[in-house]
Amino acid sequence: VAQQNDKELQKLLNEFHYADIAEILDELDLEAAMYVIKLLDSEMTSDIIMELDEDNREKVLKNLSAKEIAEEIEELDTDDAADIIAELPEERQQEVISHIEDEDHKAEIKELLAYDEDTAGGLMAKELVKVYETWTVAGCLRRIRGQAKDVTRVHSIYVVDKQNKLIGRLSLKDLIVAKSDQKIADIYISNVDSVNVHDEAEDVARVMQKYDLEAIPVVDNNQKLLGRITIDDIVDVMKEEAEKDYQLAAGITSDVEADDSIWELTKARLPWLLIGMFGGIGAATIITNFQTVMKDYAILLCFVPLIQATAGNVGVQSSAIVVQGLANDTIKGEILKRLFKEFVLGLVNGVAIAFVAIIISHFFFKTEYLVSLTIGAALITVIIIAALIGTFIPIFLDKRGVDPAVATGPFITTSNDIFGILLYFLIAKLILGF
Amino acid sequence: VAQQNDKELQKLLNEFHYADIAEILDELDLEAAMYVIKLLDSEMTSDIIMELDEDNREKVLKNLSAKEIAEEIEELDTDDAADIIAELPEERQQEVISHIEDEDHKAEIKELLAYDEDTAGGLMAKELVKVYETWTVAGCLRRIRGQAKDVTRVHSIYVVDKQNKLIGRLSLKDLIVAKSDQKIADIYISNVDSVNVHDEAEDVARVMQKYDLEAIPVVDNNQKLLGRITIDDIVDVMKEEAEKDYQLAAGITSDVEADDSIWELTKARLPWLLIGMFGGIGAATIITNFQTVMKDYAILLCFVPLIQATAGNVGVQSSAIVVQGLANDTIKGEILKRLFKEFVLGLVNGVAIAFVAIIISHFFFKTEYLVSLTIGAALITVIIIAALIGTFIPIFLDKRGVDPAVATGPFITTSNDIFGILLYFLIAKLILGF
Repeated sequence: VAQQNDKELQKLLNEFHYADIAEILDELDLEAAMYVIKLLDSEMTSDIIMELDEDNREKVLKNLSAKEIAEEIEELDTDDAADIIAELPEERQQEVISHIEDEDHKAEIKELLAYDEDTAGGLMAKELVKVYETWTVAGCLRRIRGQAKDVTRVHSIYVVDKQNKLIGRLSLKDLIVAKSDQKIADIYISNVDSVNVHDEAEDVARVMQKYDLEAIPVVDNNQKLLGRITIDDIVDVMKEEAEKDYQLAAGITSDVEADDSIWELTKARLPWLLIGMFGGIGAATIITNFQTVMKDYAILLCFVPLIQATAGNVGVQSSAIVVQGLANDTIKGEILKRLFKEFVLGLVNGVAIAFVAIIISHFFFKTEYLVSLTIGAALITVIIIAALIGTFIPIFLDKRGVDPAVATGPFITTSNDIFGILLYFLIAKLILGF
Repeated sequence: VAQQNDKELQKLLNEFHYADIAEILDELDLEAAMYVIKLLDSEMTSDIIMELDEDNREKVLKNLSAKEIAEEIEELDTDDAADIIAELPEERQQEVISHIEDEDHKAEIKELLAYDEDTAGGLMAKELVKVYETWTVAGCLRRIRGQAKDVTRVHSIYVVDKQNKLIGRLSLKDLIVAKSDQKIADIYISNVDSVNVHDEAEDVARVMQKYDLEAIPVVDNNQKLLGRITIDDIVDVMKEEAEKDYQLAAGITSDVEADDSIWELTKARLPWLLIGMFGGIGAATIITNFQTVMKDYAILLCFVPLIQATAGNVGVQSSAIVVQGLANDTIKGEILKRLFKEFVLGLVNGVAIAFVAIIISHFFFKTEYLVSLTIGAALITVIIIAALIGTFIPIFLDKRGVDPAVATGPFITTSNDIFGILLYFLIAKLILGF
């Protein structure tokens, strides 16, 4: 790039896969990236732009005119085209759309832009191969040759009736194996899974994964065929979901990466640290309110970290299992039954941990008999309560339509810290009688 | 099921998708599940068994004779067949294999069983459609009709030379669009991605996702075509990976679900709680060693939870970002540069948190000037150190070939707790001069 040897670079880059070029461009500075993009033809650059990191894509698009973007868009499938336009600022969207020359493509992209990006409509592409039930196999193959040019990969051929209602599917294999004078109506498979255009992306992912589908047709409320979703888009949805849940559990909001700027990373991390800080201030308030402890039982304060760490760990474990179960749709049955199970589990773990802790505190720290008892009793109680809170809150949020993943990580840890320390001192008061 | 009305139940179940029946059977007790399985024919039950929960599948297989299992296996693709056999106890594996009647199928399954399950070889299926470069399009279509019967979904047609070396690919679409007297050698696409049979499953997933592939051929060291991997298996790999990382971050080992037994859940959770407990005991040891604090500066003890929560949260945030970056292969460049960035980030976050904490402790808790300073200085130091530890340990483990995900969750929290509290008291000693 440095030497600006256009011809050779062009030749070299044409040998690469667009995903590899995108990866290289992500590493280059904007000027060099723009230089490479202008060098290649739009068939390749449109795919490259699609594969760029979102931040870099935004910068590259800013440096292209509306007409140039429209040219890239013409090369893309409708779903990718709509995604890119949706990323542009409002005014530019209209400008770019007005530059698209292919009227059909333009209308389809406009249609897709109307759907919420987290629904089946936001994921689907208009490109698909469809046949009418009245056609013959030979006629079908002829027409498919025409339709298939626009479709990168033919997964399934969708069979529709005269009203464009989805009635079945066929694979290319079925067509090839069939005799050429057979009617489609006689050979199609009427058992076809489909999703509604307003279904949530996560639900589409679940259906496709459960039935091992590689493409699924999208229909409207009247069963009319609108588009199709392919597994590669679903893989991206699944990955984003998993990463989002993981980051929420770790106390990071918004989708950041290790290479983002310090400012981006601070915005994603600092709010959660503040939550934790206010939790810590809350704990300090509780402790200062137990004056007797601070004067006569300072030894109890030494075990605050133990109580706190245990409460935090148990809460995170319980909430993670529930959040994962909710995501996989395996959490069924009554909430009371689940809480009872968590109670028993907490009791088992609590007794085990308390037993070890009492022995250690008694022999190693030589604490008084009643102090050891306090620590043990507090551990059992705290583990049970933390497990119940960790289980209850995600289920509760899910029932209220809130993403349960927000209730993992620092959120659950902080609330359990405060509850844990309060319980610890209340139990101490009870047992030690101050 | 209760009424044992065979005929009607049979009719009813034949309407369902096998994945739905598997879901129903997962809810039933073993006796009822076995009853349903015996009722249906093996073409359907083999798919159902494949979709069952692993625990339930084990139970069902225990209740089938080796011959019955072999019959189910005959209906499955080689990759699924090998997976099921691999789950059986050693002695039964041989017995089941000996009952497989189709010699080709038997040989292929045996071959697959030899590969490590976490490699491309462990994921691939032997079923694929391949053509020789010397064939014509018409001859090709004829032979594909034969081969395709055994292949559930034709993704790509692989083109090989006389030595069975992979030289290219073709889609069914290309074949249909081509003229029937053309030679394969003239129309195939020579640019074909493939993976080595010994490549790790995670790397295969990364390649397929990067290039948006739906199937990838698997070759040996001599480029000979051995099998192919389809995206549905990769989706499962990705999902398992994500769930495992999530559980490790939450302090849960081994793949457990909300519905597992209390014993299973305890086994997965208790070890991590013990780690946390020993961390708490370590913290208690540190505190008791600072006798002066306990006597004269008991107010400092009130802020231990604040220090501890902050250290824990920062460590988890840093390690999560690194672990995710390592999983996505986006962590490049020098480790020192990354640690420096984390240092600056820690400094920024630390100053912000310390500022708020000093104000609150001064005005709300009316702490002495020097005590407030101690808390603020400790927070900044602890945040920086926790960020560095959280960044360094996963990268270090990854370089040593250990899964960096083990260094998230309770592991990082516990070590940061101890470091944090130790630093807090050392800084107190320095500032307050005791």
